[in-house]
Amino acid sequence: MTGIHRLGNPLRHVFARGIVAAFSLLAAAVPLAAQTDPLPSWNDGATKQAIVDFVTAVTTEGRPDYVAPADRIATFDQDGTTWVSHPLYGQALFALDRVTAMAPDHPEWKDTEPFKSVLSGDRIAMAKFTEKDWMEIIATTHAGMSTADFEAIVADWLPKSENPVLKRPVTDLVYQPMIEVMEYLRDNGFRTYIVTGGGQEFVRVYAQDVYGIPPEQVVGSSIVTKYATVDGKPALMREPKVFFIDDGPGKAVGINLFIGKRPLIAFGNSDGDKEMLQWTTDGPGARLGLLVLHDDAEREFAYGPADGLPDTKVGTFSQALMDAAKGNGWIVISMKGDWKRIFAFE
Amino acid sequence: MTGIHRLGNPLRHVFARGIVAAFSLLAAAVPLAAQTDPLPSWNDGATKQAIVDFVTAVTTEGRPDYVAPADRIATFDQDGTTWVSHPLYGQALFALDRVTAMAPDHPEWKDTEPFKSVLSGDRIAMAKFTEKDWMEIIATTHAGMSTADFEAIVADWLPKSENPVLKRPVTDLVYQPMIEVMEYLRDNGFRTYIVTGGGQEFVRVYAQDVYGIPPEQVVGSSIVTKYATVDGKPALMREPKVFFIDDGPGKAVGINLFIGKRPLIAFGNSDGDKEMLQWTTDGPGARLGLLVLHDDAEREFAYGPADGLPDTKVGTFSQALMDAAKGNGWIVISMKGDWKRIFAFE
Repeated sequence: MTGIHRLGNPLRHVFARGIVAAFSLLAAAVPLAAQTDPLPSWNDGATKQAIVDFVTAVTTEGRPDYVAPADRIATFDQDGTTWVSHPLYGQALFALDRVTAMAPDHPEWKDTEPFKSVLSGDRIAMAKFTEKDWMEIIATTHAGMSTADFEAIVADWLPKSENPVLKRPVTDLVYQPMIEVMEYLRDNGFRTYIVTGGGQEFVRVYAQDVYGIPPEQVVGSSIVTKYATVDGKPALMREPKVFFIDDGPGKAVGINLFIGKRPLIAFGNSDGDKEMLQWTTDGPGARLGLLVLHDDAEREFAYGPADGLPDTKVGTFSQALMDAAKGNGWIVISMKGDWKRIFAFE
Repeated sequence: MTGIHRLGNPLRHVFARGIVAAFSLLAAAVPLAAQTDPLPSWNDGATKQAIVDFVTAVTTEGRPDYVAPADRIATFDQDGTTWVSHPLYGQALFALDRVTAMAPDHPEWKDTEPFKSVLSGDRIAMAKFTEKDWMEIIATTHAGMSTADFEAIVADWLPKSENPVLKRPVTDLVYQPMIEVMEYLRDNGFRTYIVTGGGQEFVRVYAQDVYGIPPEQVVGSSIVTKYATVDGKPALMREPKVFFIDDGPGKAVGINLFIGKRPLIAFGNSDGDKEMLQWTTDGPGARLGLLVLHDDAEREFAYGPADGLPDTKVGTFSQALMDAAKGNGWIVISMKGDWKRIFAFE
């Protein structure tokens, strides 16, 4: 009988955990080159190397740009950066499906815009929806229930959802290279945040499962919520009124409001991410800003209009943003050139 | 030469850390009774026992109320719960000192209320300030600068601050028993949050040093912040307009907004904490709500008006709150009876 077997049962279990911990630490000391590639879906090249070099610079003790784990913050835009946003944002698909699901209780919608066009599947009319039309659809489908009920509605919808072009549920259409970057950053002591123009409560429903990101690390747009007593129990009721728009300049404001620390690294893909990258890379020490360019019509979509890519209203990457990237040293990720694989199911 | 000495130097260091980890885990397995008391500033009794029993119930694997570490959320009101709020809130002392500091640039204040009363030290007039008066003082002293400049102003003020009765800097006047509870909860896998009616940016300046709580775990009231470019650099400018009031029902809303998870345990002391405790203890499984009653005029202050204590406008503990505590099974912490020591400097 060896020493460990003489210990009482719970103590032996605990001691065994200690041994496992010791071997985990040994594994962590193996030189980087000998380890498995942390970013296997990225092609070798300048972009991948810049990410690895940045992480090495801020996590290696004794290096001039070393940052303590508590301040290692990474922020990711969602639509077009971590999952597909074409031909429509995932949350817009949800809103349109909700209009259909709610229609039996609203016979008047058959003759009332913008609902009429949604229900008749008039894509040409829907493409011309104004911001006011969309606000009316969002207010109708996203408010008037408790946060708990809203979460249940989203959770029920997700597996039934379908991207109209790629014919997959929205949660299948996450970019595997970005999932790998998130895991790589977390393995190096970073906390990863979603900072999205989309709805905070919407994204929180699946962020843990899809991105490994807990609710408190999802920063997004929100509507007003009111505390109420429903059937003798406290509830948080969602009201049809905008509270906070986490887009453009709002992303820098939202980061300060929710995190209170400036990110070291930020990922975006569109004009709405410009201020987040400015706020990030203007901080002292090593910082990195990256933008995903959708230049792969074969495997996903191609849109800009930067670099002569087709124009779009959904996730615009303007030439002005491209110029800002060049002026600020932000890295433009080419989906076509930098990503070996786009989706996990490939 | 033993085995560990034959390992290369970095590996030996790492292995030694593993051994230390193994022994730490062994120490953790020693029965509670044999360990050092985690709450030495609390008198033995029902309140202390209830806290320890609750933590044991939700952190012991296999127990019916066990909760995974990711969901162990604890929230603390600040004023009157974790630090002194009498005769005035700490942040009100800051605002009044700022009026004095800013007065040379505002000669018109000598003849303009509410500034005139502040500058002349007219305590009777100040005691009668309306909410509008206070809003004007807050807007003047808390807005019109960048978040970075505001943080610097607060950091500069803190060591010079003085509670007018206890004659100590505000950051000395934290309740040692609550610091111990925070550390005890964190040692048991909880994340501790401040959820305060006070200013989020104000509290963030000292929360890490004073409470061991990082900026992203401070939820509070806030004013509107705008992204701007100042001298060619991005800045977040504080505007004299309320954005969010984290008090009363707003505390439940703020908890959902910033954390997205319901606390397991919440500490408060006044009517403004009622909804936070309702929201917390209405959740499934074991939950605990606690309220600090200021019933110790000798060592701190005595106010209610619950239980016949003197009435106050600063941190009111009404008889209605006392009735709600009884009805909901919330624990009332008696400063006089439950706390062996109130301040670390005693």
